Amino acid sequence: MQNFYYSVPTKAYFGKGVVSKIGELAKEFGSKAMLIYGKGSIKKIGLYDTVVNSLKENGVEYVELTDIMPNPHITKVDEGVALARKEGVGLLIPLGGGSCIDTAKCIAGCYGYDGPAWDVILNKSLVKECLPIIAVPTLAATGSDMDAGAMIHNEATHEKKQLMHPDLFPKYSLLDPEYTYSVSKKQTAFGVADIMSHIMEVYFSKTEGAFLADRIMEAMLKTCVKYGTIACNDPKNYEARANLLWVAAWGCNGFTGCGKIPCRWSVHPLEHEIAAFYNDPHGQGIAILTTSWMRYVLNDYTADMFATFGVNVLDLEPSADKYETAKRAIDTLENLFRSWGIPQNLRESGIGLTDDSKFEIMAEKAIGAADKINGCVPLSKEDVINIYKAAF
Amino acid sequence: MQNFYYSVPTKAYFGKGVVSKIGELAKEFGSKAMLIYGKGSIKKIGLYDTVVNSLKENGVEYVELTDIMPNPHITKVDEGVALARKEGVGLLIPLGGGSCIDTAKCIAGCYGYDGPAWDVILNKSLVKECLPIIAVPTLAATGSDMDAGAMIHNEATHEKKQLMHPDLFPKYSLLDPEYTYSVSKKQTAFGVADIMSHIMEVYFSKTEGAFLADRIMEAMLKTCVKYGTIACNDPKNYEARANLLWVAAWGCNGFTGCGKIPCRWSVHPLEHEIAAFYNDPHGQGIAILTTSWMRYVLNDYTADMFATFGVNVLDLEPSADKYETAKRAIDTLENLFRSWGIPQNLRESGIGLTDDSKFEIMAEKAIGAADKINGCVPLSKEDVINIYKAAF
Repeated sequence: MQNFYYSVPTKAYFGKGVVSKIGELAKEFGSKAMLIYGKGSIKKIGLYDTVVNSLKENGVEYVELTDIMPNPHITKVDEGVALARKEGVGLLIPLGGGSCIDTAKCIAGCYGYDGPAWDVILNKSLVKECLPIIAVPTLAATGSDMDAGAMIHNEATHEKKQLMHPDLFPKYSLLDPEYTYSVSKKQTAFGVADIMSHIMEVYFSKTEGAFLADRIMEAMLKTCVKYGTIACNDPKNYEARANLLWVAAWGCNGFTGCGKIPCRWSVHPLEHEIAAFYNDPHGQGIAILTTSWMRYVLNDYTADMFATFGVNVLDLEPSADKYETAKRAIDTLENLFRSWGIPQNLRESGIGLTDDSKFEIMAEKAIGAADKINGCVPLSKEDVINIYKAAF
Repeated sequence: MQNFYYSVPTKAYFGKGVVSKIGELAKEFGSKAMLIYGKGSIKKIGLYDTVVNSLKENGVEYVELTDIMPNPHITKVDEGVALARKEGVGLLIPLGGGSCIDTAKCIAGCYGYDGPAWDVILNKSLVKECLPIIAVPTLAATGSDMDAGAMIHNEATHEKKQLMHPDLFPKYSLLDPEYTYSVSKKQTAFGVADIMSHIMEVYFSKTEGAFLADRIMEAMLKTCVKYGTIACNDPKNYEARANLLWVAAWGCNGFTGCGKIPCRWSVHPLEHEIAAFYNDPHGQGIAILTTSWMRYVLNDYTADMFATFGVNVLDLEPSADKYETAKRAIDTLENLFRSWGIPQNLRESGIGLTDDSKFEIMAEKAIGAADKINGCVPLSKEDVINIYKAAF
């Protein structure tokens, strides 16, 4: 078990009706907030009205930053920073999925810097005074509402980068599972695949003696497997939506890694390049790449881990040959994703990836300045290309 | 799954050597701290020197409140409050088990009230300005280093009461498993029984659909079962001490209850009366009462839960009859505690409880002003007496 630091200061209100507290909580942070959301689905589900009514009742004014897209863009961050300054905004309220919350975090982190937001993304030391955030997630996926990180996309340079800073934890997260009822089957499946990947990227870091962390991650993954299937088939199942929303929050906030060897994630950096070049829905790319990656890195070292995953998470019977169990685990996971309606190759995923012409540049960018991705199994550029090809 | 509020703002540094950070962290809270510890075992294990050297290096002065006893006394709280005021202390640093940390919390909570500390224990609204705390636990048991509650004993009135306030979360917890190496086999066993009880008191609250919470608690309980045995037999096993110290911190800070129906604990209030009247080591009383309570409340409702506990935590094979599985689970747990050296009845536990003469008054006090303990199975005064008798 490794040394570690743990801090998740976000306060969470969870359950039916909790969003109506937002005005009362917002008052702590001044008299004007910025609502940050997408195309307006929050109006259809009643979330927008709940929020603005509660703000009005508590005397909190608001401005709006709208049209946030999946794989959110740095241009929206610049726009948000300018609006926050002009309007004297003291609080950011993202209402939506990870894209909205991540946009809010980037605005929060770039607010204190007088220059293009992308400068801050490339140089975290420029993060000064952060605006506070109250997050209202409407999708169980990134867990961005209880962590300190954000992913942001620069469409001009085809780059997707992370901003991470301890002051970016939302002050509050208001999680009402009923606001996730309207998420489509496809987006539900992508979200759960993303949650699972956040957990698996940590779980597969082989660490002697991180027993508690490993067993907790198995508990989380079992939750995803069980309720992913239920939510895909019965979208208004409260129990499923509630368990998924809570496990999403905990899958990515650092708790799972307590005691594990911190090694670089493997599947996420590969997917970020597909998103950067093809605007892939993140969870779809993750689901496709995960099983391709698992098959590619199957060796004496990973077979143990994948077999344990199969037995402890997927309830497989172990066989004497760990490779056989590991392969069954990968097949079972692939079938699970397929049963949720996720295509299992990039070609059929509808993102316009029809040939392998960009695999080389994507692999180069995934690896970055290093000569490999130092995940639980190090991946060279060649390895990354091979995994893209296997997933094609 | 029930609505809930979650907040655990304590920052934790975990692992070998982390206590040497204490001076640097203490500086955030002024120039004078109060060390709070017991009989001086912290000097034998080198913890005292590490702490005072780090404080000195960082220019932090300190005063000392010593001789804190198990089932800590309110008189020590009054003494601590007076000392803190006289010396202008800005930070409390408990070094020890739950007794030291709970004493620190009571001092923190009573500091802003000008009168006897017991007034505050009886009336939480008197808690005003709380002194900050940096906790250094030397025992895996209460988890007081990452929660907002404290138990305190009034020896004059034979009362053991809880103080709970959101401002009582330690600001930091510095958890070095090596400082728990010297804990005796007996105290190790008592500590793990206490951790298990914190988890089981929540786990056995039957709640539809709190799947994630239940599976996480099983992960925690499996950790206790595995490493309780290892630590009892191999006290310097780092992996065991580390997993136990981390699970203790999470067993009692509110995380396990997220989504569960909040019902009153059953075994703890019964044990608190044994502690109040016989100064019982808390974890010993807990271990003895737990299996007696389980046998007493075994019914159609609890048999399901105890059987699930047996299968998912103790790895028992389920049988067709849930009662049979539940009984095997209770027997297995009793044998586990016995294998750790914990006596399985009060008579033989060495606390001077040689007859049932106080069971009636203890039962009355356990129930308090209500007519029963509204745990997962409500317990009348008669029930409590019967459980004491069964445990006798």
